[in-house]
Amino acid sequence: MSYIISFYQTKFGELWEKSLTSLIKEVIFGVLKEASLKIDQINAIFFANMMAGVLENNLHIASKISEIIGKNIPIFRVEAACASGGVAFHLATKYLSDNSKKTVLVLGAEKMTDYSPEETTAALAAAASGEEQEAGLTFPGLYGLMANFYLQKYHYNEENLAYVSFKNHYHGSLNPKAHFQNKVTVEKILKSPYVAYPLKVLDSSPISDGAAALIITNDKKLIKKSKNLAKVLASEVATDTINLSLRKSLDQILATKIAADQAFKKAGIERKQIQVAELHDCFSIAEILAMEDLGFWRKGEGGKKIKELSTMLGRSSLTVNPSGGLKAAGHPVGATGIKQIGEIFLQLVGQAKERQVKNARFGLAHNVGGSGGTAVVTILGN
Amino acid sequence: MSYIISFYQTKFGELWEKSLTSLIKEVIFGVLKEASLKIDQINAIFFANMMAGVLENNLHIASKISEIIGKNIPIFRVEAACASGGVAFHLATKYLSDNSKKTVLVLGAEKMTDYSPEETTAALAAAASGEEQEAGLTFPGLYGLMANFYLQKYHYNEENLAYVSFKNHYHGSLNPKAHFQNKVTVEKILKSPYVAYPLKVLDSSPISDGAAALIITNDKKLIKKSKNLAKVLASEVATDTINLSLRKSLDQILATKIAADQAFKKAGIERKQIQVAELHDCFSIAEILAMEDLGFWRKGEGGKKIKELSTMLGRSSLTVNPSGGLKAAGHPVGATGIKQIGEIFLQLVGQAKERQVKNARFGLAHNVGGSGGTAVVTILGN
Repeated sequence: MSYIISFYQTKFGELWEKSLTSLIKEVIFGVLKEASLKIDQINAIFFANMMAGVLENNLHIASKISEIIGKNIPIFRVEAACASGGVAFHLATKYLSDNSKKTVLVLGAEKMTDYSPEETTAALAAAASGEEQEAGLTFPGLYGLMANFYLQKYHYNEENLAYVSFKNHYHGSLNPKAHFQNKVTVEKILKSPYVAYPLKVLDSSPISDGAAALIITNDKKLIKKSKNLAKVLASEVATDTINLSLRKSLDQILATKIAADQAFKKAGIERKQIQVAELHDCFSIAEILAMEDLGFWRKGEGGKKIKELSTMLGRSSLTVNPSGGLKAAGHPVGATGIKQIGEIFLQLVGQAKERQVKNARFGLAHNVGGSGGTAVVTILGN
Repeated sequence: MSYIISFYQTKFGELWEKSLTSLIKEVIFGVLKEASLKIDQINAIFFANMMAGVLENNLHIASKISEIIGKNIPIFRVEAACASGGVAFHLATKYLSDNSKKTVLVLGAEKMTDYSPEETTAALAAAASGEEQEAGLTFPGLYGLMANFYLQKYHYNEENLAYVSFKNHYHGSLNPKAHFQNKVTVEKILKSPYVAYPLKVLDSSPISDGAAALIITNDKKLIKKSKNLAKVLASEVATDTINLSLRKSLDQILATKIAADQAFKKAGIERKQIQVAELHDCFSIAEILAMEDLGFWRKGEGGKKIKELSTMLGRSSLTVNPSGGLKAAGHPVGATGIKQIGEIFLQLVGQAKERQVKNARFGLAHNVGGSGGTAVVTILGN
């Protein structure tokens, strides 16, 4: 059995003064300090990053991390678009499953704001299918198609979507590491400019810089002396075609459903036992679909449910995106999946401060690549 | 314990008529057919690729593979520059080490010849350090520095290097899947134009398209009924700074030495028991350094040893690069590490045809990222 014993993240945002390398360095030594460990106690590193190759012709970062730490341990780079962090965590848990005593550091980092929005948007589109790229579809466009379909099929409107951002910006206002720490009103969201109809600026997660890191171990001695512990009950990955035109349905992310069913089976718990979840709200519609595909809400009722704001901090038995989600906490792609799991860790060990969910025993993180080509569902317990 | 039960590769070369997707499709269904398996029997896929992001803005290929196979299984993309294939194989063996019954497909693919040599060379330089890129150093330049240092320190000349290519082109002439199937004379090699002094065109591996795939399993039933079997005795990964200026020595790839020492310890065999090896000869000097760093030859004697051609097929107890190596068989980056392990598999199961090493019981594959930032050493037995 593997345990998370430490989490660290940089502030997410427009970090003009920091390079990818400096972000990586900060979280490696930050997470080690947090755990009172030395780099010599780390047996391997998993690194999640999507775009350093495309944006800054920077690949083979494993060797660059070797230089930073001055060690020759195995270092693995994993890429699965926006699910890179979740997939890196998943492979790290697999790496620990041979039960030889090991401690692994998992980090994600992304440097996205040094480029024009056009360059970054085009680079993000690398995760879409060739046909979609050729047709000029960007990710706001792809999620816009899903949003239109959902609103029409279940008779909702843009106001229903706005409540996702309203809630997540409120949570972000409680998170000092969040990219955006301002509350927004539903009115303001509805008046913000369209990015891809019906999605507006305030339905969309931002382009952010940032990094996050976790330490996972199966070393019983280390587990015993760790102050903070969260058990990895399940980490499951599923894939699907990225091509929306080939999907059976536009109002379901099948990969999420498959990964969630497997994860709950593996963890041996029920949906209703989850008190806190970090979901992949790259766009407002994505959180609504995720709540349904994960099995928290029935298909089609999400538009209504979100307006009740039951998933807002302190409102009911399940709080969703207490970090602020991708929407408010920011979305430095490779770091996102790690930060989500880190937030659940903080909630379970009671260190989420102002945004603490009371008595959280079980938490879930949900990380998606592109428009749903990869989904990772992680369940932690304390 | 994991076993390789099947290998398939496309021809390596300038495959103008094939896309990355078509190469991937060919090897997935090729390797399944070779093993008489159906895609439903595969539990996960590991995919090695370096440059699709940089060259064709194509990332998140896991989801594109999901579309090709029509399944939602976990698919993982791994990148470690030219060591991507070896690292993907390593992670696949780790994935199997939890001992739940599983069968995994590992593939590597690269599409490199659709671009100008300048574009491809610049993209390959992504694996170098930022400082090296800024200084205008390409990989021929970096290996040229190592070659100059080695020749000067141990009093050899360009002729010593030429024997690597002479041998590997001879082996390539026996391999119908090789990019180059022509023999070359030492004279011709020495007269070929310089790429980066003292390295010439015929000291250098080519830019190739191609793909390769393996199936690995720990399923006892499947192992029992497989016609062809090679046991994975060890797969070890080590890293190092990519920055030549920070290395202690220019005539040693430290990551290779560390990974080799660990792999031989793990496999529990001696160097002299290896009868066949596929080494990472991206440039002639690289094979000489590898023979020394792997412990087959003493440091500094490689220049003399290679001229004796003892590692040529049929000459002595150890044959090196029977496939033709990267030099003649070609170097479609992500596919290379998989092809190397595949060649050892073919040798151990007695299916290497004209280039068969007699009575091979133990074989080694050695895969390097960039100028030595990652090294993977895999030992197989039959």
